[in-house]
Amino acid sequence: MQKGVTKISSTELGRRMGTTASQIRQDLNCFGGFGQQGYGYNVVLLHDKIGSILGLDVAKNAVMIGAGNLGHALGANMDMKPLGFNLVRIFDINPKIVGQTIGNVEVFHIDTLDEFAKSVNIDVAILTLPKAATSPMIEKLDGLGVKAIWNFSNEDIEVPGMIVENVHLSDSLMTLSYRVADSKKPEE
Amino acid sequence: MQKGVTKISSTELGRRMGTTASQIRQDLNCFGGFGQQGYGYNVVLLHDKIGSILGLDVAKNAVMIGAGNLGHALGANMDMKPLGFNLVRIFDINPKIVGQTIGNVEVFHIDTLDEFAKSVNIDVAILTLPKAATSPMIEKLDGLGVKAIWNFSNEDIEVPGMIVENVHLSDSLMTLSYRVADSKKPEE
Repeated sequence: MQKGVTKISSTELGRRMGTTASQIRQDLNCFGGFGQQGYGYNVVLLHDKIGSILGLDVAKNAVMIGAGNLGHALGANMDMKPLGFNLVRIFDINPKIVGQTIGNVEVFHIDTLDEFAKSVNIDVAILTLPKAATSPMIEKLDGLGVKAIWNFSNEDIEVPGMIVENVHLSDSLMTLSYRVADSKKPEE
Repeated sequence: MQKGVTKISSTELGRRMGTTASQIRQDLNCFGGFGQQGYGYNVVLLHDKIGSILGLDVAKNAVMIGAGNLGHALGANMDMKPLGFNLVRIFDINPKIVGQTIGNVEVFHIDTLDEFAKSVNIDVAILTLPKAATSPMIEKLDGLGVKAIWNFSNEDIEVPGMIVENVHLSDSLMTLSYRVADSKKPEE
């Protein structure tokens, strides 16, 4: 879409994504199928449909807890709006950080979280906290009725009844390791 | 392994990973197969073999370029050693940051990169730079013979002849979006 392509075949989509045309058609047919035989896919329509499947068109209130280096990096650089996430507030425990603004969002003291959660429906909490602080915070959030977590604590967390999406930077680094090690092998 | 499990069946592995026993066996057989019929897999052996497939046992020198918030967060919190990455030096352009130490690694001025690359073989550059600075840096690194990039610029970069692993935090956020939106749907 960004490249001005207006229609695309399943063959071409498959080629770009390293899979087959039939896999593309089969997968998209699970959601109804949006292609036309002999035409392919309308790129803008396909983009919108996939966005809708992913729920990007559903508005979701998010708070970030932890405004250290990672919180700053995410808050200042990641535009979550196109994915439907509205970052409404950032919380931290450090009085030196409270009152700062990160990407237009103010940092409040963590002690004000309970009060805030009573007035605003929080769909997602983004946890950019030290590992040791993460589990107690998840329990607290569970008590406040927050049901989804984007977890950066570098530790897989599973909580019954909560949606937890764990970020795995090490998966990406292991993929890189594989490719680098493979390239270092002597040619056979 | 962390839980003290010493052997595991392909059925149990499949259950934990959300796939089938036959898929597990089929995938591992691509690399020779390490299980024994009627016994299953020796967990420590399997862990080591998979690490070896991923090249984690191959030592790889890494430098990080960009010691802003993200560079600080990664350098201070991510232990790359178990994956075979040795972070040997961090570079930045900001004189206020140069001379600092992040997770035991000193930050040097970016102007010293060329000289450093002559004396040490750099396998991987971790780019935690603003988007606009990323492409010129990749060209520079290409000229210095660095052939692999872990790219945090939030933009997919492809360079012929270079291994580029792009980190996609938005993929993880879209997965979360899907799960949250799905949970908000009225029950049918």
